[in-house]
Amino acid sequence: MKPIVFPYTQKPYKELVEAKLAQRESRIPKEWKIDVDLSPANLLDVPSTCGLLTDRELEITEKYDSVGLLAEIAKGTYTSKEVTIAFCKRAAIAQQCLNCLTEIFFDKAIERAEWLDAEFARTGKTVGPLHGLPISLKDSMSVAGEDSVVGIAAYCFQPEKENSVVVDILIKLGAVMYVKTNVPQSMMVPDTDNNVFGITRNPIHKELTASGSSGGLAALIKFRGSLLGIGTDVGGSIRVPAYTHGVYSLKPSSGRVPYHNVKGYLEPGAETAGILCVNAPMAVSVRDLEFVMKCMSDAEPWLYDPSCQYLPWNEPKPLDRKLSIGVIRFDTEVQTLPPVARVLDETVEKLKAAGHEIVELELYLADEISANAVDHFKVDGGAFLLSQLELTGEPLTVANQNGGLYPDVKRGLSDFYAYSSARAELQRAWLKYWEETASKTKSGKPVDALLLPIQSFLPRPEGYMMRSHFSRTWNNLDYPGLIFQAGKVDLAQDDKEMPAPITDMDARVQTTWAKDVRGRYDGFPIALQLVGQRQMEPKLFQTMSEISKVL
Amino acid sequence: MKPIVFPYTQKPYKELVEAKLAQRESRIPKEWKIDVDLSPANLLDVPSTCGLLTDRELEITEKYDSVGLLAEIAKGTYTSKEVTIAFCKRAAIAQQCLNCLTEIFFDKAIERAEWLDAEFARTGKTVGPLHGLPISLKDSMSVAGEDSVVGIAAYCFQPEKENSVVVDILIKLGAVMYVKTNVPQSMMVPDTDNNVFGITRNPIHKELTASGSSGGLAALIKFRGSLLGIGTDVGGSIRVPAYTHGVYSLKPSSGRVPYHNVKGYLEPGAETAGILCVNAPMAVSVRDLEFVMKCMSDAEPWLYDPSCQYLPWNEPKPLDRKLSIGVIRFDTEVQTLPPVARVLDETVEKLKAAGHEIVELELYLADEISANAVDHFKVDGGAFLLSQLELTGEPLTVANQNGGLYPDVKRGLSDFYAYSSARAELQRAWLKYWEETASKTKSGKPVDALLLPIQSFLPRPEGYMMRSHFSRTWNNLDYPGLIFQAGKVDLAQDDKEMPAPITDMDARVQTTWAKDVRGRYDGFPIALQLVGQRQMEPKLFQTMSEISKVL
Repeated sequence: MKPIVFPYTQKPYKELVEAKLAQRESRIPKEWKIDVDLSPANLLDVPSTCGLLTDRELEITEKYDSVGLLAEIAKGTYTSKEVTIAFCKRAAIAQQCLNCLTEIFFDKAIERAEWLDAEFARTGKTVGPLHGLPISLKDSMSVAGEDSVVGIAAYCFQPEKENSVVVDILIKLGAVMYVKTNVPQSMMVPDTDNNVFGITRNPIHKELTASGSSGGLAALIKFRGSLLGIGTDVGGSIRVPAYTHGVYSLKPSSGRVPYHNVKGYLEPGAETAGILCVNAPMAVSVRDLEFVMKCMSDAEPWLYDPSCQYLPWNEPKPLDRKLSIGVIRFDTEVQTLPPVARVLDETVEKLKAAGHEIVELELYLADEISANAVDHFKVDGGAFLLSQLELTGEPLTVANQNGGLYPDVKRGLSDFYAYSSARAELQRAWLKYWEETASKTKSGKPVDALLLPIQSFLPRPEGYMMRSHFSRTWNNLDYPGLIFQAGKVDLAQDDKEMPAPITDMDARVQTTWAKDVRGRYDGFPIALQLVGQRQMEPKLFQTMSEISKVL
Repeated sequence: MKPIVFPYTQKPYKELVEAKLAQRESRIPKEWKIDVDLSPANLLDVPSTCGLLTDRELEITEKYDSVGLLAEIAKGTYTSKEVTIAFCKRAAIAQQCLNCLTEIFFDKAIERAEWLDAEFARTGKTVGPLHGLPISLKDSMSVAGEDSVVGIAAYCFQPEKENSVVVDILIKLGAVMYVKTNVPQSMMVPDTDNNVFGITRNPIHKELTASGSSGGLAALIKFRGSLLGIGTDVGGSIRVPAYTHGVYSLKPSSGRVPYHNVKGYLEPGAETAGILCVNAPMAVSVRDLEFVMKCMSDAEPWLYDPSCQYLPWNEPKPLDRKLSIGVIRFDTEVQTLPPVARVLDETVEKLKAAGHEIVELELYLADEISANAVDHFKVDGGAFLLSQLELTGEPLTVANQNGGLYPDVKRGLSDFYAYSSARAELQRAWLKYWEETASKTKSGKPVDALLLPIQSFLPRPEGYMMRSHFSRTWNNLDYPGLIFQAGKVDLAQDDKEMPAPITDMDARVQTTWAKDVRGRYDGFPIALQLVGQRQMEPKLFQTMSEISKVL
């Protein structure tokens, strides 16, 4: 048993990129190529207007969420094969519009769907709760026989030998794998761009970033080229793209979703210590997120994956009282832009009107927690990433040069321990802070969940490096964060000036809300974040279910 | 929020030791001093013969396990104060016979017990499920106002500012803290000896080691100076001392028992990554272990301690079938000595006779797992320990010089990641191995638990550095291991020669079973180990309960 070593090709990266793009291009059937006008700001109507999808395929891809579609497949309304072909075609359109895919394996997917249909016909039963559902994957998930390039040329044409455990389990549950999706080089900058596959476009507005690092996944799901995908989150990577695309996602606590044999931007082994990157679902509804998380727990992943904790899906007792929700309005560094503040405020008022209790809280220790997260993220100074780029002469992307984490000093074990120790103290402090909310509620119990933005600002144009403590705080604390749609930008209400900036970051954020550019946001979806206590996802969904009733 | 830093005294260590020993001596009331003959090989009858304990105190300390005694306190048979005084007195005798204590705070304990009695009188109810029970602690647990010397002179007279979270929770549950117990210097060698407090003696036989690192705890519990203690285990430290003293212990998986603010032998922060040291109970019965573990889970420690996972005590379904037990007889390096092999074999035969299924397994990947554990343990090359010794000019103990892990090269972050990556692959391989036992059982389900020795050999004389893959394998895999009493050495049956040694370690082990020395073992208790799947302690106790029925 040895550490994983990657066998590298040593070709210059440009040769690899050329060959890789040709390979990807070849994976889209000629008859699914469309002649598409990419000039409109919003491309969301291309699937229904380009003529490639039949009415039935439009119905399959547009009418349902995953839970709804799975029920139809299980009833026999649709075969898995026709569902799979519909999503393969729509994903092919997405790729041509948005450049959101990396590995494409439609043939294998259709073969798998045929097998599922045959099993269904033979036994009269579905193979599992995800029977027949195509699920998209972030590029970091390993699928045997396919590359995991993760935006690094050296990994082109190095097919994986085995599936990530999460992929194995999804397959066991009946799902169909068909595409992997684009990521930023390093996965630690917030635009989905790299030297191999290039940049992914946000289908809602071309001036706005697809964000990242699960940007390809979000673009594909917003485009309904997928209803459900598995991405990752170590600082906001599943939540921010869901926010920038008006879809739903959950960053679970560590230990819930198998993470073994998932490719990262650090040395193998780094995924086991420090702030843990987690696999995380993105979907078109809250109930899809809950469903896939419950399916995953019910599959007992701790029996297969050493990264999992023993976390059965313990349903909480039915709620026999109103909620107590802690609200956090300010990220301590950046003032919240008017539409985000308004949507949060409206949600709070709706909760109050329904009799729920609201407790005003702060983003306690946000600066310290964020600084500690950066210490963790920079711990190797980029040495591993740079070593992988060097193999093929590949440069850092502009994003990584300008706003990324490296190059920096490679730290030692004692530094790592010091960061870990400081982190444990911060986690302990937050446990106390949450516990002490009991003194502010009528019931004398701590708040059920925290309600807050995921970012103080709206989706950025590409290349703007902005950060928000609202996201990475919960990675450092390892609390689950659920992204749900709560409203839209409405310039009739939101066309307001901001107070004077309070920090440099605040000033930068305010340029995205300048008088002359804010028009692009009109109608843009605004999601909020609901944060629960560590590993208590079932309770988080129970709380969300109450909130959904008032929205 | 900064990493913890210890404020050091810089006095030469001998001065500190002298003052520390005087302080400890002063904490035993003069009227509890006894004139004791330490020459007998076995000192277990001193408490009943020395005249210090009343009949009632002998009854309190000898008649019950913790569960039984707690029931009597809750019924009002005994006050917490008289129970506390009884155990303080008996612990004082233990200290005079065995040198097993470090910090002694009888006054605080009696004051606490008086408060508990007053609460009980006032409310008619116990304060919690551990109401009135004195619980002993390994020296590494922090108790506010007391030192945590952990065998290092520099830590003398540096009282802790706050309790370890585990201590807070035990107190919340109604327990009484009264003593801390001795450990080896570094806690990574298997004799309980250090330059501050000296060596702890095994009360069963003076030629045999108290072992370690929870050796002081085990000696105290065997002596019934305590019924329940909390120690730690990172390679066998709670299980081996239980074995060498004929008592019971559980090494839980990580995340079950709070570990925040427990003192280790590495830099602060090291306790969060790699092979995790765990807090672990030691007791006089299996049911005590289960009871305290369930109490701990019911106290929801994940709300207080960042090291805890969300692990409610999910009772398994009642068993509606016979057990399938995997038996492992050989640690791959050392041949099992006759009494240990016989007791294991007898237990297996009893299980078979009761209709349970036995599957012969191997200690799969034992060498690789053990080597990987050593890589983890040696990761800092002893740099931190040596730096702490240097502060006062304290030398390494002979044990650490001869058989310890350092000094060695201090490793870097990349080494640590490589060890972690290799470890994850080993863990994954074992998950598969366990899963595949399903092919060997009649039910087609994997085995319920593994039954094996904790050591191939019997308790060693002091200074013999011997190791056993039977213990550290389960730290590396993070599986729970329960030590239970299964038989005794019976020279009438066991007086047999061993086959020729197969390794150097085997040859060393066989010297402890030489014809001329094996007589000392006659009647010595022999425990076995029951190992469950990661974090599934409730199921492990269910399996143990079935096994207890046949013993």
